Amino acid sequence: MQTETLTQQITALHQGTVSASFLAERALQRARSLESLNAFVALEPAHILAQAKAADERRKQGRALSLLDGVPIAIKDNYLTQDYPTTACSAALPLEPAGTDATIVANLRSAGVVIFGKTNMHEWAYGATNSTSRFGPTRNPHNLNHITGGSSGGSGAAVAAGIVAAALGSDTGGSVRIPAGACGIYGFKPSYGRASRHGVLPLSWSLDAPGPLAASLEDLGHLLPFFCGADPKDSTTRNAMPFDNTISAGRPKLINLTGAGLERSVEVDAAIRSALTRCDADVRETGLADMAGYFSAWEAILHCEASAYHAPLLAQNATGYSAVTRAHLEAGKLLAGVELLKAQQIRAGLMTQLAVLGDWDALVLPTLPVVAPRAGDEWQEFGGRRVTTQDAMTWFCWIANLAGLPCISIPIGMSPEGLPIGMMLMGRPNADEHLLGVAGWIDRNLKVDK
Amino acid sequence: MQTETLTQQITALHQGTVSASFLAERALQRARSLESLNAFVALEPAHILAQAKAADERRKQGRALSLLDGVPIAIKDNYLTQDYPTTACSAALPLEPAGTDATIVANLRSAGVVIFGKTNMHEWAYGATNSTSRFGPTRNPHNLNHITGGSSGGSGAAVAAGIVAAALGSDTGGSVRIPAGACGIYGFKPSYGRASRHGVLPLSWSLDAPGPLAASLEDLGHLLPFFCGADPKDSTTRNAMPFDNTISAGRPKLINLTGAGLERSVEVDAAIRSALTRCDADVRETGLADMAGYFSAWEAILHCEASAYHAPLLAQNATGYSAVTRAHLEAGKLLAGVELLKAQQIRAGLMTQLAVLGDWDALVLPTLPVVAPRAGDEWQEFGGRRVTTQDAMTWFCWIANLAGLPCISIPIGMSPEGLPIGMMLMGRPNADEHLLGVAGWIDRNLKVDK
Repeated sequence: MQTETLTQQITALHQGTVSASFLAERALQRARSLESLNAFVALEPAHILAQAKAADERRKQGRALSLLDGVPIAIKDNYLTQDYPTTACSAALPLEPAGTDATIVANLRSAGVVIFGKTNMHEWAYGATNSTSRFGPTRNPHNLNHITGGSSGGSGAAVAAGIVAAALGSDTGGSVRIPAGACGIYGFKPSYGRASRHGVLPLSWSLDAPGPLAASLEDLGHLLPFFCGADPKDSTTRNAMPFDNTISAGRPKLINLTGAGLERSVEVDAAIRSALTRCDADVRETGLADMAGYFSAWEAILHCEASAYHAPLLAQNATGYSAVTRAHLEAGKLLAGVELLKAQQIRAGLMTQLAVLGDWDALVLPTLPVVAPRAGDEWQEFGGRRVTTQDAMTWFCWIANLAGLPCISIPIGMSPEGLPIGMMLMGRPNADEHLLGVAGWIDRNLKVDK
Repeated sequence: MQTETLTQQITALHQGTVSASFLAERALQRARSLESLNAFVALEPAHILAQAKAADERRKQGRALSLLDGVPIAIKDNYLTQDYPTTACSAALPLEPAGTDATIVANLRSAGVVIFGKTNMHEWAYGATNSTSRFGPTRNPHNLNHITGGSSGGSGAAVAAGIVAAALGSDTGGSVRIPAGACGIYGFKPSYGRASRHGVLPLSWSLDAPGPLAASLEDLGHLLPFFCGADPKDSTTRNAMPFDNTISAGRPKLINLTGAGLERSVEVDAAIRSALTRCDADVRETGLADMAGYFSAWEAILHCEASAYHAPLLAQNATGYSAVTRAHLEAGKLLAGVELLKAQQIRAGLMTQLAVLGDWDALVLPTLPVVAPRAGDEWQEFGGRRVTTQDAMTWFCWIANLAGLPCISIPIGMSPEGLPIGMMLMGRPNADEHLLGVAGWIDRNLKVDK
C-alpha cells in the first residue's frame, strides 16, 4: 500500500527529480483523499507549502540543511510544536500552539524537515487502540473497519497509507510498535534514556520512549540520529550516545520467546515461524517465567506515574478527560507506595532474567497476538486466552518498556484477510544500532525470499 | 580517648612488636572493663582468640593473608556473620548465627581479620539515637550520661573507647557518621552503589550504604578497599570501581553550607568556622533551597521502603518489634504511590541542585547540629529550632543519602563540656577517593595546627 520510502524521497530530492514542494503537495492531496482514515488532527496546507518552498530555495542555492531537507514528516499530537496545537488528543488541553518544539521536532526542523501536521492518537497515549480521541477514532488503511492500534495510530495510518513516508510516535507499552504492526510498516522504540523525551507529553516517565514509524527499515536509520543522544533538557539522556547509522550485522542468534503468558493466534504464530525459517537465522526457543507478575508491575508503574503526572490538571479540568482515562487516573492514586516499590523491584528482576538468557542478538515475539481487530470488538481470543482488545494490543509490547530495551517491529506478511502481521525484535540495553542491523539482516533476507 | 589506630596495629603486627593474640586479648580485656558502654551484643572470647592464634600462625610462617591479617574489627549487628547471630538488635529475629557472611565481612575474613563480635545498634537501624535496642541503649565513652547516636552506636563506642581500632557500620540517614561525630572518631559513607549491601539487613535499599568507623583517617583508607567494588551479589554495584587508596589532594575548594534548614548550635558553628580557618582551605559559603521538601522526600522514601521490606516479618511477628518501630512501619504502608513518586522526583532535583553549585571539592556541614545529647532528652534546641533528638541526629546527614554522595565525618575538636564535635565533608558521586584525599588534607592541617 505504501508507495515510496523516506530513503527514496531523500534520493529523489538529491537528484533533483522531485522538489520538496511536489512532495508536500502530493502528500496534502493524498491526505485530503484519505480523510476517512482520520489520521491527522491538525494540518495547515499553506504552512506546509511555505516550509517546502523554503526547502526548495535552500537546495537550489546549494544550502540544503541535511539529507532530509524538504521531506515531509508527520508529528504525533503529544510532541510540542511551535506551529501546531498539541493536545495529546485530549479535550483537557487548549487548541493553541505551545510556541515551542520538543527536542526531536526541533532537531528535525533544523535539518529542514517539513513539519507535516499532527497525527491522531489515543487520548494522552493512555490506551493502545486509538479509539478514544477528542478527534474520533483512527481507521486502518488496510481495512477501514479495523483499528490501527495505538497510541501512535494516526502516525501508523499516515505512513501505511503513503501520505508521508515517516512519522513520529511515542511508546510506553507499545504505542510505536502496535500501529506499526497493525498497519504493516516499521516502528522503532529506542532504549530508555537514549532518546530525548523533552517536550513529549509524558504518560509514564520511566517507561516512555519516543520513536519513529516509517515505510522502510533504512528510513529508521535516517531518523534515529534525530532521536538519540544526550539532551541537556532531559536528564535521563545524560549518558546517551548519538546514533551510529553505519552498523550492520551478520547472521543473528535469535531467541523465539513462547509459552505461558506469550500466547498468540495460530495464524500469527505460523507467520512468525515461517519468517524465522525463511530468513535462515540461528533460532532457539524458550519461555519467560512470571509473565503475569511482570505485567502487573508494568501496569502499576504506568498507572501510578500517570496519576502523579496528571494530578494537577485532573484537579483543575476533570471534565476535559474521557471517562475511561479519568477512571484510570483515579485508580492510579489508590496504589500504595509499598506496592509501587514491589513493582519497581519486580521490574529489576525482569532485567536480570533477560540478562541470563545466554547469547542472543535479539529476542523475537510477534508485535501483536492477533491481526488488527475490527473496530468495536471489545474482546480478543487467541491461544486459549480471552482478553480485552486493549490488553491484546500491548500483549507483548510492554516487556521492552518494563526492561528499557530497544525494540523494533517489522512487517513480515499478510493474513488471509489482508491484514498485516508484524514481527518484534528486542535488543540489549543501548545496543540500538546492533538491533537495527539485525532487523536489517532479517528484513533483507525475507525480501530476497519473496 | 582512643589510644591506637588500625594503621599502628598493622605496622606493629608487621614489625612483630605485637601479636594478633596480644591485640585480641587486650581488646577483650578492655571490652570487659567497659561493659557499661553496652557496645557489644555478641562477643565470644574463645572464638576470637582462636582466630587471632591462627593469624599469628600464618604470619609466623610468612603466609599472612593481607596487611590486616590479625587485626580485630567489630561488626555492626545488621551484617550477616557465619559465626555470630545477626538480629539488627531486634527481638523479631532469632539469636542464631545465619551461617553466612555479608560480602564485606567475607572480604575481611579472607584477609585474615579477626571478626571481633557484633556491636549494638538502633533496632533495625530505624533510628539515630541507639536508645532502642533489644540489648538496651549504648553509652558514650566520653560521658556515660550521653548517647552515642546511631544507628551504628556500638561500633562508634567500641572504637572511641579504644576497644577496637575499627568497626563496620551502615548508613541510611547518617548511621555511620552520627556515632562517629558524637563519639569523636572517623566515619565514611561510600557513594550509593559503590559498596556491597549484600548480607547487610536493609533499612531502605535506595538509601543504605555500608561504611567503616575507625580511629584515624588513614585507617579508613585501609578499610574502604574491602567495601568498594562490584559484587555480583548486589546488582547496584554493577559499575562500582574498586577503591584506590593512593589518591591525595591539594588545597581543596570547599563550600560551607549554611542557612535555612541547616541551623546548628553556636558552639558547633564556631567549631566548624574555626576548623575551616585553621586548615586554610579555599572556602566559600552558600545555602541550599527547599531543605524541608528534600527532608520530606528522604523520610517518605525511607519509611516506604522500610515498610515494603518488613511487611512479611511484621505480619508474622509484630510483637518482636518495638512499639516505635512498628508504628513507623505501619505508617509507611499508608503512603500513596503517587506521593512516593513525588519524593523520588524531588530526590532527583536535589542532585541537580548540588550539581550546579559550581566548582567544589567538598561540601562542608557539621556532622551534628549539637554535641551528643544527654540520654533521655527528647528535644534539642539550636539555631532557633526545637526538634526531636532523633531529627537532630539526622539533621544534616540524610542529605548525602538522598543524593547518593560519599560523605565523611572527621573529629575537629571538643566542646567545653568535653564532648566531641565532628565536621562532615560530602563529595561528588563516586569520587570517594578524592573525598578521602580532601579530608586527609584538612585532617593533617588541623593536626599540624594543634
